[in-house]
Amino acid sequence: MPRYKLTIEYDGTPFCGWQLQPTLPSVQGALEAAVRATCGVATRVHGSGRTDAGVHATGQVAHCDIEKEFRPDKLRDALNAHLRPNPIAVLGAETVPDTFEARFSARKRHYRYRIVNRRSNLALEAGRVWRVPQRLDSEAMHAAAQRLIGKHDFTTFRDTECQAKSPEKTLDQLDVVRDGDAVTILTSARSYLHSQVRSMVGSLVWVGQGRWTADDLAAALAARNRAACGVVAPPEGLYLVRVDY
Amino acid sequence: MPRYKLTIEYDGTPFCGWQLQPTLPSVQGALEAAVRATCGVATRVHGSGRTDAGVHATGQVAHCDIEKEFRPDKLRDALNAHLRPNPIAVLGAETVPDTFEARFSARKRHYRYRIVNRRSNLALEAGRVWRVPQRLDSEAMHAAAQRLIGKHDFTTFRDTECQAKSPEKTLDQLDVVRDGDAVTILTSARSYLHSQVRSMVGSLVWVGQGRWTADDLAAALAARNRAACGVVAPPEGLYLVRVDY
Repeated sequence: MPRYKLTIEYDGTPFCGWQLQPTLPSVQGALEAAVRATCGVATRVHGSGRTDAGVHATGQVAHCDIEKEFRPDKLRDALNAHLRPNPIAVLGAETVPDTFEARFSARKRHYRYRIVNRRSNLALEAGRVWRVPQRLDSEAMHAAAQRLIGKHDFTTFRDTECQAKSPEKTLDQLDVVRDGDAVTILTSARSYLHSQVRSMVGSLVWVGQGRWTADDLAAALAARNRAACGVVAPPEGLYLVRVDY
Repeated sequence: MPRYKLTIEYDGTPFCGWQLQPTLPSVQGALEAAVRATCGVATRVHGSGRTDAGVHATGQVAHCDIEKEFRPDKLRDALNAHLRPNPIAVLGAETVPDTFEARFSARKRHYRYRIVNRRSNLALEAGRVWRVPQRLDSEAMHAAAQRLIGKHDFTTFRDTECQAKSPEKTLDQLDVVRDGDAVTILTSARSYLHSQVRSMVGSLVWVGQGRWTADDLAAALAARNRAACGVVAPPEGLYLVRVDY
């Protein structure tokens, strides 16, 4: 049975998150409905990982097994036709060996967090960014962020509902860059704890506001205590941008 | 009476355009209502120019005279508070000499037109870009665009409802740049005819699709005939980004 790898963009706003829920609209649920409408058979769609309610993706990856053989571009077009009017787009489909697992084969996951650092409300990017009115020192944020790089116990930056067995993760990249009033945080790692990116971003915003020093951030990490976390950044600024295999 | 210069961002989607209309929501109407709510007096807000229904702005400029003296940042905040929930944001306010006229003092107007060149539907940028499914040759578009630079009779690229006295305009810049599947057209000129940017963009897309050569575009310009225009690009990809004074 052919296995297909799908690359997916979505606006997370109307969904309870990636994961299927019995009574709420989910990205996975919409995709599974589109696959079923395309091939006539109830089919599981496996994502590279869950995204929370309101979190976006420009490059989520999923796989599914479909009995019928499709030309990948025809499968992509058929899924997109059935996905309407959901704000979900299949950007690409390809056949992969059946050893490919969207979740377990992933080597690195890349996220982007978008802040607009201005006092005025958002007209064009409402629901797409986190607006922070107080001036952020993005260089201080970037410098402090480097203290989180490497292998650590990230309990401080972990949602209390996180189901991961170990709180240890290895963070490969956490860069903060400013372009005008746009402050963007780029991060990559093999995997993350639940809410880890948003927890790190919220804490970095405290650094940017001068409320925390880089040492305070390092101390929060060392505390290995959820109560030591700064604020958790809202979901609408977060994008899963790429998964490497 | 102090004169204020306002820099304004808006999502053009819900508006009939910049210009006040008696029965339809307009950007100018929403701004005038916010000024009235702020200072208690009916006040005209003069824009640098009209934008059509659905066209966006990240840097529209307007001026208005308000009897009461405001600290510019307080005026900005008050207007933004009264503008909610309209997708309009006053990014900046400053006092200017009463010789300043948003429309007549403008030396150059900069527009950006955003195309997403892909087959898949739009999830995150619906209403913000024009999606063109057929592969566009952006280098051919850029080369052809240079044939429109300079002073010309732009009748071909002019809406039949255009009220300008002369069809002659001087185009300073018309660049086409690709970044992945994003094709962006950047243009600047002192002023434009009605629908000129969208008419030029639509014709350039014909070049990008191989339907027209650069010579065909030049011939369309030389025809000075609206019927010689390619397609008119839809409003949702167009942004007024800056006005120079």
